[in-house]
Amino acid sequence: MVLPLVEYGKDLCQKLTQIKLSRIVIMVFIILILTPLFTHFYLSNIERSSSHITHSAHSHIDLPEDFNAMKETDLRVGVEELLRIKGSVLSELRDMERKRQKLLLEIQTYTKNIEELKQELVHQQTNLNRLKISVEQAQVAQREALQQNTPDLALPKRLTVDEYPPVLPSLPPSLTKFCQMFSCFDHSRCSLTSGFPVYLYDPDQFPVMNDGWDVDGFLKTTLKQTLGYNPHLTNDPKEACIFIVLVGEALKDVDDVSENVGNHLNLPPLDSNALKRLPYWGGDGRNHVLLNLARRDLTATSGDIFSSVDTGRAILVQSTFSARAFRAGFDLIVSPVLGPPGGDVWQECPQMLPARRKYLLSFQGEMKNKEIVTHPSNIDDSDLYKEHTELGKFIIEHLKDLAKTDTADKFLFEFECVPASDDNINTGPQDWALCGTDSSRRTVLKDSTYALIFAPTYTDLITTTLLQARIYEALRSGAIPVILGGDQIRLAYDEVIQWRRLAIFLPRARVTELHFLLRAIPDEDVLLMRRQGRLVWERYLASVQSTLDTIVAVLRDRLNIPPLPVDTVAALSVFNETFQPIQVTVPVETEQEESLGPLEPPYNSPAFRRNYSLALTQGHELWNDWGDPFRLYPALPTDPLLPSDAKFLGSGRGFRPIGQGQGGAGKEFSEALGGNNPREQFTVLLLTYEREQVLLDSIGRLRGLPYLNSVVVVWNSPRPPSPELKWPDIGAPVHVVKAARNSLNNRFLPLDNLQTEAILSVDDDAHLRHDEILFGFRVWREHRERIVGFPGRYHAWDVNTQSSWLYNSNYSCELSMVLTGAAFLHRHYLHLYWKWLPQAIRDKVDEYMNCEDIAMNFLVSHITRLPPVKVTSRWTFRCPGCPQSLSEDDTHFQERHKCINFFSQVFGYMPLLNTQYRADSILFKTRIPHDKQKCFKFI
Amino acid sequence: MVLPLVEYGKDLCQKLTQIKLSRIVIMVFIILILTPLFTHFYLSNIERSSSHITHSAHSHIDLPEDFNAMKETDLRVGVEELLRIKGSVLSELRDMERKRQKLLLEIQTYTKNIEELKQELVHQQTNLNRLKISVEQAQVAQREALQQNTPDLALPKRLTVDEYPPVLPSLPPSLTKFCQMFSCFDHSRCSLTSGFPVYLYDPDQFPVMNDGWDVDGFLKTTLKQTLGYNPHLTNDPKEACIFIVLVGEALKDVDDVSENVGNHLNLPPLDSNALKRLPYWGGDGRNHVLLNLARRDLTATSGDIFSSVDTGRAILVQSTFSARAFRAGFDLIVSPVLGPPGGDVWQECPQMLPARRKYLLSFQGEMKNKEIVTHPSNIDDSDLYKEHTELGKFIIEHLKDLAKTDTADKFLFEFECVPASDDNINTGPQDWALCGTDSSRRTVLKDSTYALIFAPTYTDLITTTLLQARIYEALRSGAIPVILGGDQIRLAYDEVIQWRRLAIFLPRARVTELHFLLRAIPDEDVLLMRRQGRLVWERYLASVQSTLDTIVAVLRDRLNIPPLPVDTVAALSVFNETFQPIQVTVPVETEQEESLGPLEPPYNSPAFRRNYSLALTQGHELWNDWGDPFRLYPALPTDPLLPSDAKFLGSGRGFRPIGQGQGGAGKEFSEALGGNNPREQFTVLLLTYEREQVLLDSIGRLRGLPYLNSVVVVWNSPRPPSPELKWPDIGAPVHVVKAARNSLNNRFLPLDNLQTEAILSVDDDAHLRHDEILFGFRVWREHRERIVGFPGRYHAWDVNTQSSWLYNSNYSCELSMVLTGAAFLHRHYLHLYWKWLPQAIRDKVDEYMNCEDIAMNFLVSHITRLPPVKVTSRWTFRCPGCPQSLSEDDTHFQERHKCINFFSQVFGYMPLLNTQYRADSILFKTRIPHDKQKCFKFI
Repeated sequence: MVLPLVEYGKDLCQKLTQIKLSRIVIMVFIILILTPLFTHFYLSNIERSSSHITHSAHSHIDLPEDFNAMKETDLRVGVEELLRIKGSVLSELRDMERKRQKLLLEIQTYTKNIEELKQELVHQQTNLNRLKISVEQAQVAQREALQQNTPDLALPKRLTVDEYPPVLPSLPPSLTKFCQMFSCFDHSRCSLTSGFPVYLYDPDQFPVMNDGWDVDGFLKTTLKQTLGYNPHLTNDPKEACIFIVLVGEALKDVDDVSENVGNHLNLPPLDSNALKRLPYWGGDGRNHVLLNLARRDLTATSGDIFSSVDTGRAILVQSTFSARAFRAGFDLIVSPVLGPPGGDVWQECPQMLPARRKYLLSFQGEMKNKEIVTHPSNIDDSDLYKEHTELGKFIIEHLKDLAKTDTADKFLFEFECVPASDDNINTGPQDWALCGTDSSRRTVLKDSTYALIFAPTYTDLITTTLLQARIYEALRSGAIPVILGGDQIRLAYDEVIQWRRLAIFLPRARVTELHFLLRAIPDEDVLLMRRQGRLVWERYLASVQSTLDTIVAVLRDRLNIPPLPVDTVAALSVFNETFQPIQVTVPVETEQEESLGPLEPPYNSPAFRRNYSLALTQGHELWNDWGDPFRLYPALPTDPLLPSDAKFLGSGRGFRPIGQGQGGAGKEFSEALGGNNPREQFTVLLLTYEREQVLLDSIGRLRGLPYLNSVVVVWNSPRPPSPELKWPDIGAPVHVVKAARNSLNNRFLPLDNLQTEAILSVDDDAHLRHDEILFGFRVWREHRERIVGFPGRYHAWDVNTQSSWLYNSNYSCELSMVLTGAAFLHRHYLHLYWKWLPQAIRDKVDEYMNCEDIAMNFLVSHITRLPPVKVTSRWTFRCPGCPQSLSEDDTHFQERHKCINFFSQVFGYMPLLNTQYRADSILFKTRIPHDKQKCFKFI
Repeated sequence: MVLPLVEYGKDLCQKLTQIKLSRIVIMVFIILILTPLFTHFYLSNIERSSSHITHSAHSHIDLPEDFNAMKETDLRVGVEELLRIKGSVLSELRDMERKRQKLLLEIQTYTKNIEELKQELVHQQTNLNRLKISVEQAQVAQREALQQNTPDLALPKRLTVDEYPPVLPSLPPSLTKFCQMFSCFDHSRCSLTSGFPVYLYDPDQFPVMNDGWDVDGFLKTTLKQTLGYNPHLTNDPKEACIFIVLVGEALKDVDDVSENVGNHLNLPPLDSNALKRLPYWGGDGRNHVLLNLARRDLTATSGDIFSSVDTGRAILVQSTFSARAFRAGFDLIVSPVLGPPGGDVWQECPQMLPARRKYLLSFQGEMKNKEIVTHPSNIDDSDLYKEHTELGKFIIEHLKDLAKTDTADKFLFEFECVPASDDNINTGPQDWALCGTDSSRRTVLKDSTYALIFAPTYTDLITTTLLQARIYEALRSGAIPVILGGDQIRLAYDEVIQWRRLAIFLPRARVTELHFLLRAIPDEDVLLMRRQGRLVWERYLASVQSTLDTIVAVLRDRLNIPPLPVDTVAALSVFNETFQPIQVTVPVETEQEESLGPLEPPYNSPAFRRNYSLALTQGHELWNDWGDPFRLYPALPTDPLLPSDAKFLGSGRGFRPIGQGQGGAGKEFSEALGGNNPREQFTVLLLTYEREQVLLDSIGRLRGLPYLNSVVVVWNSPRPPSPELKWPDIGAPVHVVKAARNSLNNRFLPLDNLQTEAILSVDDDAHLRHDEILFGFRVWREHRERIVGFPGRYHAWDVNTQSSWLYNSNYSCELSMVLTGAAFLHRHYLHLYWKWLPQAIRDKVDEYMNCEDIAMNFLVSHITRLPPVKVTSRWTFRCPGCPQSLSEDDTHFQERHKCINFFSQVFGYMPLLNTQYRADSILFKTRIPHDKQKCFKFI
């Protein structure tokens, strides 16, 4: 009697999983009352009937007892009769029981069949819906294609000139001293689509220095070499937009330089006639850029190499300018090239923390000429002059007093060098000479929160090489420059760099408020300025390479010409050209019983749409915040959104509003992407290493995944895949790309066949459900600048050492990383991983064969100053039964501790930030009316 | 026999709700099998025993039958005996049954008691934990207070001078023509803490114009009046930092102006001697600002009123400057004052959409002097001059050709006015005169995507009044200015405003690339520029008030003096000073059985910490993005974060890292705030109107809520609360604030007793659980610039009209609003609601008594360009049993449709954006090991 109940129970189980708890309780309750009663009733009936039988038999047997007088034979016959009856009744009962069992079995079979048919019906319905949505989407796309009367923008064709500059009569200096881009620059050589070709005169072939002078040899070689790496460089002067003449730091060709310092002003090192003889000078030096970079000779006077030379319409680039000579918006102030030729520079910088260092403010320097002069010559006797001289003295006295004040803040002021500096090298009458050596100054600066810098005492000077060198050194060591007389001076590239964010410009008169001001700046702003200082230093000043790239980029930016597109990595197939991999059809996973969106043919993200507007609307951010002003990217995570009415008023192409704009719950939601961006797809990027079956299974599971553009597999193994492998046909292209060598850095290769902004980076053994993926995709679309994904981790402070970090993968309510084994990220970050991250980090990844995901988290958090977004996951995402993954073993974990500490050293601080929530779908676990669908069935 | 089962079932129900479905199924299954069996067994036993009894009775009774020979009396005795036995057995059975029942009852009672005790234990344990955490936190806070050796920064005391400027000898023009802030400005009158006092000379008392000239009367009155609204204005010249001299648009005092236009250049309207006679001129005009604002006279030549006047060290402010006369960083270029004196200006602007308008590019103007001149006089015969003249002609021809081209783009070019313009008013030989009337030009401009503007033909002019007027008109109508010759000119306030984000500056030579460039800019950038143009126009140019405020703010910003603090609304208690409201203790709600954080004394958010650093590190954003450069706020939602290592390396004060930095799951999480910001609390802000008991219940429910700073109730009713009301004592201060009148705008009053950045705005009938509130608070801490809250709504496109929006509160998978009936938002937005929103919106809120929450969502999304964040809520948040709320009825809903459309008209576009996810707590619905706690028990 129990068996049918078991069956019933099993069946109930399945149904129960779909019914709400409250109902279950009521049902259970009813069952608990009714079942025993019915069972009892039923069982009792059986017993009763059987007891009835025995009872009736008994009464038959009893009967003769009532009639004691009956004969014995009669009695025997009677008993036998009764036994026979009993027997037939029993066998009848057995038959009935058998029939009942049979019937029950049949019922079970029928029920099962009906269930199967029902499931099939649901399945078919889902497929039909999917198909319908896909057809509808295809129709919309087709309509849009018809309506679209303009071609898609892409990288424009380069249009360049093809002639040498014609010779024009030269302009008189009275005019060229007012040169502006509109009056002295020839735009006709620099079309917007020209790509800004830059021609460099070989300094050995075309010397421009007077006899006895030459550009510092090391500088000449380095400049030539590093400019060679700049993509704008052209060998064809006919197509060039600008012509660069290397002047560089001029050194006299005699052994003892120091004797001749006094002559700098008298004998100009630059030869006007040599300039005019340059083959493309064109009579007036149009579009010529005279590059005077200082390296060692930090004397300020010799800095202005052009002061008595007729430079025509050429643009002057150097570190020293007087207010009268500098043509703002035309000439360019640069920083001296004090760093290495190129490469990683992070080792030069100390850690950014703590915010407050030993000294609040420090200064080391010596004034050769103790008199402080305003305008160099003509007004020596004016009151203004006296005023300034007095102010100068007052400043020094005030600072000396300050250092003596009884305060918690420490100051280090040395107004005379100890030991005395080499007077002949580092002094000029208008600037404070540097004291000590590069390394001794570095020691002081890395202990200083702020570094005091005086503007040149000749108030006519708006920049000197020494001033720029002091800025360079302060930024390198993370000391925030405080420039007294800051309203007099200009810093390098200030048409694009906002120096106010990283240095404090103070009028001399405010020296009395200096201490108050510095104390009033809270730690977060100190660190913001220090971080910004490092950004500017690393990107624009640190090395010869960055200096030259910056000069070219500033001039290009001035002309509104977009940079050249960023390099991608050619995706070479792992297969021979002729080889056709075997394809097999795989079934759609049975668990994906939900229509999640249309299946459409691959649709690539539009690219290079903002070539001519990015620098206008977001140029400030490009130079001063995120981004890379040196290269053009197909799209940025920070591209602006259209307002939501634009979709309906003229700019709706590509948008798929939910319910045509009416919004809606699950049904409408699953039919359209909605959101604030036009429709798009994502690319699955897989890194694999010799786990072929695991890989093929993973790919196979992607069949039927909406919004999937293509799958790109990076084949990290040197052995190509076996030709017998059966690749699943998933309805989207699968590219298998050969990796140059086995490296985890290959996970982030900026391959040229990644055609979407959204990249879903997954491990080859990741087992993500379709609904999880699509929900993750939707969340990423709202946070395109962040890593959006599934496995959360965090960085924990090591409370034992109190000086280092631990990697932590425990259950936690606060996260700071989302591993790229299952995460969406913007394609842009693949470029930045290779271009922006210091090589040391990729080397560490190779050394450990580990940590590439941590590095990516560092990078993105550093740029955005935001934590990643964790998305809900219904199940753990590791595939069950797969070979034990690397991440489990202990060495792996230890390495990750080391990585996290090494990386934060390279960055100079810990860029990761915490987050305390998870993105779930909107109606998850919400009671909604029966006529509505949830956004996702299960998540 | 069924009763105990019912009891069991009920009990089970309660337990079941806490057990997983899978287990339930198994249990049910087992029960289904076992219960019937046991029941059957049991019931059968009873039957058997009773049948046994009857059977044995039967056998007793039967006995005599076996002995038929027995006597009848014996038989009767036997039967009686048997009946007696039967009776005693039955009564015995009844006794037993009673005992059994009693035992069962006892067992139930005991079980219930044990349960109660268990719950009490848990409760006490939770309380103990809470207390422990609170004690720990108090200890940390105390330690920090001891370690803190610097006082908290707050609004500094104003330090101002108290003397008239001494008289100094004047400087020769040869020096003043190079005036810079460091050489000509006296900083000693403008301490950083001075608050920048501005003194205005009464133009009637101190006239500075030559005989026969006077400032336009309307202008004079308006300027005086509007400057009076500026908080920096002082009546005490002794304390003033700058002295403003109104010069304004000069008109000749004769009836017919037009005849004398030719004399403008010959007879300067400004009287040098009158300037020198100004009482605080101090001999050289230090710190004087000469304000020459144009209103009607747009002739460019007369614009430079100072050209032949000795203005000493004064700062010149006007719309016309030549490159030689303009002292960059000292003088100031302004826009002419073409708008109303003040007030709302949004009506002047057309809608921003569609992105593309009827004309791609338009121009209307007339050149009086057809010859195009470069430098005014000295180089008429140079090649440069010829080149420019030719270029000018070429440009016009090229544009005319362009308009004729067969392209989808429409151009409107009128190079001669139709009908002919009034030559005498609007022409100058170097500028294109305006055609038609303000309204006719507006009609064309609001149909133009871009507006073409020519730089002055005298290339020496960097700005003219006409040029600035054209910019003003273009921005007002949402036409993006395209300035041909853009590298020659400068626009108003360009030291703070980044014009590149809203106007296209094109060298004249690029006219051939103009069409290509304009087509290459995608819609999103068109709209970005248009929006930015409107921001700049509304904030800095639109009205006389904004112009004057901007001039004062730019000069103040130059000196690095922070603005004056924003005004708050005094929170007047609804009670008399002497009245003490009755307080009653309320129990902590029983459902809050979770320790959610420490109970600490009120801790106010630090305020005014960045007074001197905000303008440095985020000045660009302040002027060009979010924020208000005119006032100082206690804190901003966009204040920077410290890096996460700063907490452990010297800047840890106030931080409460989770697990002391080790992180952790639920337990550690509930003990500390963690996150990226230091510890803080939030204020509950309640608006109430005549629902006293509902309000008191709501307040009572806040008892025991961690991180609650205080409760501020805005009493919107004119009737004060009844003195008999019993106010619940919730362990945090409750302020009841009198509202001036019943208005829903009062929900967002920037009251001076709101002491935290986080404001939890709630309806008086909202029923939020503590865990929901605290989770919301934690999420808000990660999105301080957004609205973070519970009830989600969205704006839906009306597909029937295809031109308007509908407010929608249906279940949806995409949201765009979070109602402020239960949401966290930054205190900053309360200020902006009153200061930044146009009055029309607050009026609409009052008109409908509705929509204030929609207005706030518009405001925040407009500023951030981000959607709000919806946080998970366990239950619906309306209190059950409360009187039906307003929002249910249909009029209310209709009004909300109207609001949403009206607001988007005022904003000029629809600022709301969509979001498709919800914030849930990290381990919600996650299986975790038994030794770990979830982040929250229930959410």
